[in-house]
Amino acid sequence: MNHPIVPPASTATPPTTDRERLWQALMELARLGATPKGGVNRQAMTDLDRQARDLFIAWCRAEGCQIRIDAIGNIFARRPGSDASLPVVMTGSHIDTQPTGGKYDGCFGVLAGLEVIRTLNQHAIVTRAPIEVVAWTNEEGCRFPPCMMGSGVYAGQLGLDDMLARCDDTGVSVGEALDAIGYRGSDSVVPGDVKAYFEAHIEQGPLLEDTDTTLGVVIGALGQKWFDLTLTGVEAHAGPTPMHLRKDALVGAGEIAVAVNRMATDAAPHGRGTVGVMTLHPGSRNVIPGQVQMTIDLRHLEPEALDAMVEGLRRAIDETCARHGLGAALEATADFPPEAFDEACVQAVRAGAEALGLSHMDIVSGAGHDAIFVNRVAPAAMIFVPCEGGISHNEIEYATPDDLHAGCNVLLRAILQSAEVERSGDHRKEPA
Amino acid sequence: MNHPIVPPASTATPPTTDRERLWQALMELARLGATPKGGVNRQAMTDLDRQARDLFIAWCRAEGCQIRIDAIGNIFARRPGSDASLPVVMTGSHIDTQPTGGKYDGCFGVLAGLEVIRTLNQHAIVTRAPIEVVAWTNEEGCRFPPCMMGSGVYAGQLGLDDMLARCDDTGVSVGEALDAIGYRGSDSVVPGDVKAYFEAHIEQGPLLEDTDTTLGVVIGALGQKWFDLTLTGVEAHAGPTPMHLRKDALVGAGEIAVAVNRMATDAAPHGRGTVGVMTLHPGSRNVIPGQVQMTIDLRHLEPEALDAMVEGLRRAIDETCARHGLGAALEATADFPPEAFDEACVQAVRAGAEALGLSHMDIVSGAGHDAIFVNRVAPAAMIFVPCEGGISHNEIEYATPDDLHAGCNVLLRAILQSAEVERSGDHRKEPA
Repeated sequence: MNHPIVPPASTATPPTTDRERLWQALMELARLGATPKGGVNRQAMTDLDRQARDLFIAWCRAEGCQIRIDAIGNIFARRPGSDASLPVVMTGSHIDTQPTGGKYDGCFGVLAGLEVIRTLNQHAIVTRAPIEVVAWTNEEGCRFPPCMMGSGVYAGQLGLDDMLARCDDTGVSVGEALDAIGYRGSDSVVPGDVKAYFEAHIEQGPLLEDTDTTLGVVIGALGQKWFDLTLTGVEAHAGPTPMHLRKDALVGAGEIAVAVNRMATDAAPHGRGTVGVMTLHPGSRNVIPGQVQMTIDLRHLEPEALDAMVEGLRRAIDETCARHGLGAALEATADFPPEAFDEACVQAVRAGAEALGLSHMDIVSGAGHDAIFVNRVAPAAMIFVPCEGGISHNEIEYATPDDLHAGCNVLLRAILQSAEVERSGDHRKEPA
Repeated sequence: MNHPIVPPASTATPPTTDRERLWQALMELARLGATPKGGVNRQAMTDLDRQARDLFIAWCRAEGCQIRIDAIGNIFARRPGSDASLPVVMTGSHIDTQPTGGKYDGCFGVLAGLEVIRTLNQHAIVTRAPIEVVAWTNEEGCRFPPCMMGSGVYAGQLGLDDMLARCDDTGVSVGEALDAIGYRGSDSVVPGDVKAYFEAHIEQGPLLEDTDTTLGVVIGALGQKWFDLTLTGVEAHAGPTPMHLRKDALVGAGEIAVAVNRMATDAAPHGRGTVGVMTLHPGSRNVIPGQVQMTIDLRHLEPEALDAMVEGLRRAIDETCARHGLGAALEATADFPPEAFDEACVQAVRAGAEALGLSHMDIVSGAGHDAIFVNRVAPAAMIFVPCEGGISHNEIEYATPDDLHAGCNVLLRAILQSAEVERSGDHRKEPA
């Protein structure tokens, strides 16, 4: 099909995307599952998810894109290039949300991709390589764990049959849910030949805002090692038991929580250490806790540094247990290796920010994203824009139209650099 | 009424109590509410409590005692002395138990008193002062808080009408429950003229066992100051939030738990510091806790030392909050001043242990006991015997027949020293 007829681009530099059009698309999508507090509840494979998928596809079709849906429900909207033999340049993210999610997490990346295509069409720019905008299925994983399901199956990191059989709390399987919304596609789930994948996303952290920086050039994702730790002492009355005869599991847990925080702080800027859950037994005001169960979440960008943090944790546990006469059982519950994004893709993002004169910094992703799985089968990178207060997975999540627009313009530049301009509406050459 | 006719005492020294008789009484009482795990569930003012009261009264009546029941259900069993004008020497404890209580907590003190009377009768010993064995109502407070209800009303520390109106979880009041078991007595609840009160009890702590000591001379009870502390930081994702931008409430809580433990350890031997409850919000593995609620229990024998611990706690909170950018709200929830037992009563206990050649040590009560309330209106002291592993309020609570017998013999000596022997069955003079 043909691109809409638009006026030719008026300059030799790449055009800029349309700030208002991007914002309006975000606001329109956010109406599906809108919550009274201003957020969105549109969980994966619900009827609201279907409505959002339908809307996204309608928008893409209106831009002349070809739609393909694979067996795990990932949607690929393709804008052809001039050379069908070239590998595709992909961009995208997800349109499912947390139960109390915001308007920007995921949706920004998908609609930024759509806005890039709209801009290219508007300026009649033809690229040599095809461009695809992807909406990955079930990135949040809140109805059907695990998260990043669609990109994980795509990248061969999660099994298709296994994922289709996963059930929600009511016993409905992913396969049944996909059938119910009509999004179990016929395409096989295999990564094609991908030249580059770019994902624009809100930061979901406070660093850009804190440093007054518009754009984060995401160089990689932190590795994560998760543990469950059980400390066992002796439960006893808080009154009659003198201090030197205690085996207080909570005092040990406190020392370890402090040690985890200190280790991660010492491993700045990429170290993270968090104790998020701590359960005391028996949990009575005047009884010395005889047992504490706690979680430990360690992250770092460099594998050696992450391993050193784990070593430090084991040492801290040994010392604490010796000091307080406690027993310890440490169980690893998750292990995601650090992920370095593709150098050329990262440089394409950085160059885009520089060309646009945006304040920018190298940054790492502390959270999971579809790009992390895609990076295992194709060159990938991400673009972060600030979100207010670093707050995400929350109905008050917010990003400014200006920052979103800036991120979208960087995405456009990175995509054009990878897909290469064959010709633009004004028939002038792509700038260097 | 007359004392039973018994053979005269064969020596000038006070007789010893009957080890087997004491043990059998304990085992017989423990059948009422016996649990499959070997403990007792006989909560205050239940029908099982009525059965236990009936049994105790029957035993006392068989020994010629006069029974008096006051308006909060305390039972006083009096063995008259030769001089009715003299103040009474009291002993006792309680026969209600925790839901998963043991056979010894409370019951030992009441039945040790009964065994003293049985021994005096057996040896035809007449004391100048009357002796009363008391079973205080609802020491445990588990069905009807607060604990130490009967002794608290007796000592004017708790209001009678207020206590009678207190309800259990099903809406039954103390007054109704006393009526239901027929133990709302007609006697007014006022402390008469009491010369001395002695309470024998299992230690409920590990110190005697740890030091291989048979008898604890209880010199006082620790003061207690209880607090609820809420630390407020900022909830944020564990991945994207770098360490220097965190306000991690759990790290602060860990530091304070460690500080509480250290302060109490530094205040040895009488300092105690315990964090028994800690609740994290939101309590998710990969979310930095934005708020932690915790309890703090500080105890010490000396008022100044207890105040210094509270000062140290406030300082630790201030420093932690400054370090981690946290807010803190500290609320005092209970304040029991330290209680020093009566010097002469304490000395009577110590002298008894010495005369019997028992290993003994001065010790403090870390938990609450009826003797603490009684001490506010009459000279009082306590006698501790070891309990296995320091374990109490537990169905596996255990004390050896030998240790219980030793404690009972010391009780007999202390009572005789206070009540003074008028004449014994063999008409010889009381030993010095």
